[in-house]
Amino acid sequence: MYLEKIREPADLKKLNIKQLKKLAEELRAEIIKVVSDRGGHLASNLGIVELTIAMHYVFDAPEDKLVFDVGHQSYAHKLLTGRYNSFQRLRSMGGASGFPQASESEYDSITAGHASTAISAALGMARTRDVMRGDFNVVALVGDGALTGGMCYEALNDAGHSGTRMIVILNDNAMSISPNVGAMSRYLTHLRQSRSYLAFKRGVRRWLAKLPHVGMPLFRFLERFRDSLKSLFVDGKFFDALGFRYIGPIDGHDIQHLIRILRRAKESDEPQLIHVVTQKGRGYKPAEDHPDVYHGVAPFLVESGEGRDDSHIALGRIVAKQLAELAENDIRICTITAAMAGGTGMDLFAQQHPERCFDVGIAEEHAVTMAAGMASQGMKPYVAIYSTFLQRAFDQIAMDVCRNSLPVTFLIDRAGLVGADGATHQGVFDLSYLRAIPNMVVAAPRDVRDLKKLVALSANLDRPMAIRYPKNGEDLGPGIQAQQDFRIGEWELLSAGTDVMIFAVGRMVQAAMQASIELMGKQVSAGVVDARFVKPMDEKLLFEQASRARLVVTVEENVISGGFGEGVLDALARLRVDRPVLTLGVPDRFVGHATVDQQLQRCGLTALEIAKRVLERYRALTESGR
Amino acid sequence: MYLEKIREPADLKKLNIKQLKKLAEELRAEIIKVVSDRGGHLASNLGIVELTIAMHYVFDAPEDKLVFDVGHQSYAHKLLTGRYNSFQRLRSMGGASGFPQASESEYDSITAGHASTAISAALGMARTRDVMRGDFNVVALVGDGALTGGMCYEALNDAGHSGTRMIVILNDNAMSISPNVGAMSRYLTHLRQSRSYLAFKRGVRRWLAKLPHVGMPLFRFLERFRDSLKSLFVDGKFFDALGFRYIGPIDGHDIQHLIRILRRAKESDEPQLIHVVTQKGRGYKPAEDHPDVYHGVAPFLVESGEGRDDSHIALGRIVAKQLAELAENDIRICTITAAMAGGTGMDLFAQQHPERCFDVGIAEEHAVTMAAGMASQGMKPYVAIYSTFLQRAFDQIAMDVCRNSLPVTFLIDRAGLVGADGATHQGVFDLSYLRAIPNMVVAAPRDVRDLKKLVALSANLDRPMAIRYPKNGEDLGPGIQAQQDFRIGEWELLSAGTDVMIFAVGRMVQAAMQASIELMGKQVSAGVVDARFVKPMDEKLLFEQASRARLVVTVEENVISGGFGEGVLDALARLRVDRPVLTLGVPDRFVGHATVDQQLQRCGLTALEIAKRVLERYRALTESGR
Repeated sequence: MYLEKIREPADLKKLNIKQLKKLAEELRAEIIKVVSDRGGHLASNLGIVELTIAMHYVFDAPEDKLVFDVGHQSYAHKLLTGRYNSFQRLRSMGGASGFPQASESEYDSITAGHASTAISAALGMARTRDVMRGDFNVVALVGDGALTGGMCYEALNDAGHSGTRMIVILNDNAMSISPNVGAMSRYLTHLRQSRSYLAFKRGVRRWLAKLPHVGMPLFRFLERFRDSLKSLFVDGKFFDALGFRYIGPIDGHDIQHLIRILRRAKESDEPQLIHVVTQKGRGYKPAEDHPDVYHGVAPFLVESGEGRDDSHIALGRIVAKQLAELAENDIRICTITAAMAGGTGMDLFAQQHPERCFDVGIAEEHAVTMAAGMASQGMKPYVAIYSTFLQRAFDQIAMDVCRNSLPVTFLIDRAGLVGADGATHQGVFDLSYLRAIPNMVVAAPRDVRDLKKLVALSANLDRPMAIRYPKNGEDLGPGIQAQQDFRIGEWELLSAGTDVMIFAVGRMVQAAMQASIELMGKQVSAGVVDARFVKPMDEKLLFEQASRARLVVTVEENVISGGFGEGVLDALARLRVDRPVLTLGVPDRFVGHATVDQQLQRCGLTALEIAKRVLERYRALTESGR
Repeated sequence: MYLEKIREPADLKKLNIKQLKKLAEELRAEIIKVVSDRGGHLASNLGIVELTIAMHYVFDAPEDKLVFDVGHQSYAHKLLTGRYNSFQRLRSMGGASGFPQASESEYDSITAGHASTAISAALGMARTRDVMRGDFNVVALVGDGALTGGMCYEALNDAGHSGTRMIVILNDNAMSISPNVGAMSRYLTHLRQSRSYLAFKRGVRRWLAKLPHVGMPLFRFLERFRDSLKSLFVDGKFFDALGFRYIGPIDGHDIQHLIRILRRAKESDEPQLIHVVTQKGRGYKPAEDHPDVYHGVAPFLVESGEGRDDSHIALGRIVAKQLAELAENDIRICTITAAMAGGTGMDLFAQQHPERCFDVGIAEEHAVTMAAGMASQGMKPYVAIYSTFLQRAFDQIAMDVCRNSLPVTFLIDRAGLVGADGATHQGVFDLSYLRAIPNMVVAAPRDVRDLKKLVALSANLDRPMAIRYPKNGEDLGPGIQAQQDFRIGEWELLSAGTDVMIFAVGRMVQAAMQASIELMGKQVSAGVVDARFVKPMDEKLLFEQASRARLVVTVEENVISGGFGEGVLDALARLRVDRPVLTLGVPDRFVGHATVDQQLQRCGLTALEIAKRVLERYRALTESGR
């Protein structure tokens, strides 16, 4: 075992190529072992084992800055930088994060989690070096999937123009999470196949040289038009146009060659882009065959590749099926996804209506404005994006959709606390930033049945709407008393209470129901309202129920600042209902990786915690005489 | 006068080329006349008069969709689509908006205002056409400045791959607002100069043809490698790589040629990009000479080009000067602007420290993450962006800056109501979306003196901070009693009151002071607190002062949802202070163009309106006995 002996990258440099290859095998085995146990990102990490080794072999981190875009492919990096032990508890509370995290190691130059940011961050580091007259190297590793994101282009444009010394490694595995889309993807494929051009160049020169009198003058004549010649022979012209020297394509599994190329790049003074071709899932057959399935995985059995637990109902898939049915009779309905057709369930919609499902790449901003364009001409687009990634499109939601009051529906998946992916993936801001925007309807269903009702409502709504839900849900069925139907802005009184009234949103409705049972055991009568519309609010029901209670409680899986609870406070102030209010939600800090239950516990949002906090506040109230 | 006879674009089609040229002159004169009177965007509108005429001549709006990126260059379009009268009151209440607005005319296919969205919106329209089996044309007009924004690239990548029929016209005037930056700009310059390539192509062929035996076989041999050949001869390879057929460069002031090119493009079935070269400010000498100065202007005298009113203090310039001084002794201080060096005042910083002022183009997302990269390595970046444009970078502020708790300071210019630019430019969401993010300090100064103090504080702060301020400010001087100094999170009691306590933010502090004087005349004693930190709040002062008052009032130039007032409500609930609260701010709707005073009036935020609303609420309270 070499891996056990690697405490820091310096140890790696003592190994020869043969030993490095052995190390690569060990890293793969380790990654498969831990991910099958803990879940996580598999295929992308298996793909860049040799590349990561070569990077640490050639560069001197942490002095040299290695920036991993998104960062879900940083497992080998973590294992090579003294985190073997914490990696065993990957993505679990107290274990290593699934993403680079500056607080975890000095080798993680910056915390990451969202796509397409690495070149920007790296350029900032390189410019700092130049201002401070430092001497370190900066290397950004970016996937070809992330390259569909506009930020990459913004950063390449800026960096290429400034001429700042930096290296961008393009890790091209021809996939982001779903198979890649877009012209860029096609272009990269073209580049991968372009090795023949180099042979062609040599051939032309040799051929021309043989021509008496004419050949070499012609070659020199052509050479005067250098740019053209270069683009004729080496085809990285897209990156050339952006001011980067293009090097590639390079075999991403040939450690020796990678080391040679990186060493040469290190000597250069200009912005360089090295195009490395890797195989996603490399070394684990099921992942090689189905890299999209093995992008991010729950724990699985190594031998068969089968998942260990699959009892959940994925809400996105339910929505997709329902929309596919609605679309049968409504040509206006279409879906838009940003490189997440599988994760959001929209691949199910695409199976039935391929011509009406648009995967735009990792390009949330474009996705939203394109939806606005569609809606402006009579379509009814559904934009399915995870809560945390929809943050990217806040401005487009406000300016292009809501300013035009266009009937775009946002299907906000992974809302609330998300578990193992941790701080960068929590969907806990959407209620705040969506509530702030005029013309927007914001809803959160408590269960599968209500989710379907909300989707049905949205189909006939002529304005912007957002429906937020967690990854998995339950069909609560008749356990909770239920309205047959409801309209936009209508809440539901689920149980009456004389002391306390709890207004809860989404998944928290169930927790509130359980909390009310707990409270009953403590002689506190607490009712529960399902406030399924965060905007507009059901002010009539709010007024009635809040007026009757001695204590009003709000519960949401969102930060308190700007969230549902503050909306209730403001509505009560306007309605001149003067009651003490307890707002429960995600506190004002980033919530790190753990299980969802642990995170709820940490935020005081389990049924027991809710009951405890309500009881405490209620007792203080009654004891103080009000 | 032809212009007066144009009631719709169809009228235009009756004119011949000579008459169209005359019409162009008339449009220019009209635009200069109205903008000199009302203020607005001048140079960009003068630059595309011929292009706009040609677009309407060739295409049939409103059936064909013309999408103007940003839209501040749509004046000629407005004048040609039946808005001659409302254009006379451009950007004034009741007059034409300075941007395309769907509610204003069916010729405005979608409301716009922020850069780089047109290709996305146009692609959405084109896809709608394809799904619905329609037959209209879609044309997006995008400036070369907007092309530095990543959304353009996301959209080109998507459109080029899908092969959807659409036309992108690149209006290349070599400027965005400031002179353009980035490799793309250099690349476009290269293209503009590349007409010689076409001559070269013809030359090579002729030359080769003359070579006996060898020449034409060589030409055919080269021709087999078509892509390479094409890129050798026609140099739009960047756009080719993205799947667009590149056509250009075209003289943007030759109406006849423009019409010919657009007609040909209309016949094509593939995505096309037409590169049109225009001169910003064309036809008005001062604007031709200083297109950056005449991008967006206040009313001016046509003869001299001199401004009519210049008595305001631009706050951005004050900050820039102060930072330039601080930077003398602190190498870490640098500034970042997104194509707004002039507007934000940061050109003043650049004069003293050119190597530490980074203009990244219209690329707010990249700007913020680059700042995070810099701060991670010890720099102290100041990111100066207008409030409305900073919305673009919400995710990067949260994930890259605040998640890392890095010492980046946001200088948020044009915060609050902005006047004539209207709905798309109001800076009324920043308090809401910034308050929601952990680790963030959010401040708003009441006057010049406090702005300077806040900047001084930020220089020594080791975490993220946002300072928001309107375009212009006043030096209130000793008129308002003032603390000598303050710390992060510290508010200031400006005047005591026994009945009402008003907590005001930023520019509203002065209005609140005036309101309190009004109230005094009505026998209501209202105190005022300057709540200069929206986050963290001064809970000690809040508790003290709110507890003593019978009515608590909050006033802010931000939407109420998620804003300062709701933060106060939540803090009071936590502090268990039970007082009626009146939250005053921008209501839940988009506020259209008018003067700032008219907008404040409409939002009930003038001193008189504040006094009136406070009095009403206070009387209701006292009459009801509480």
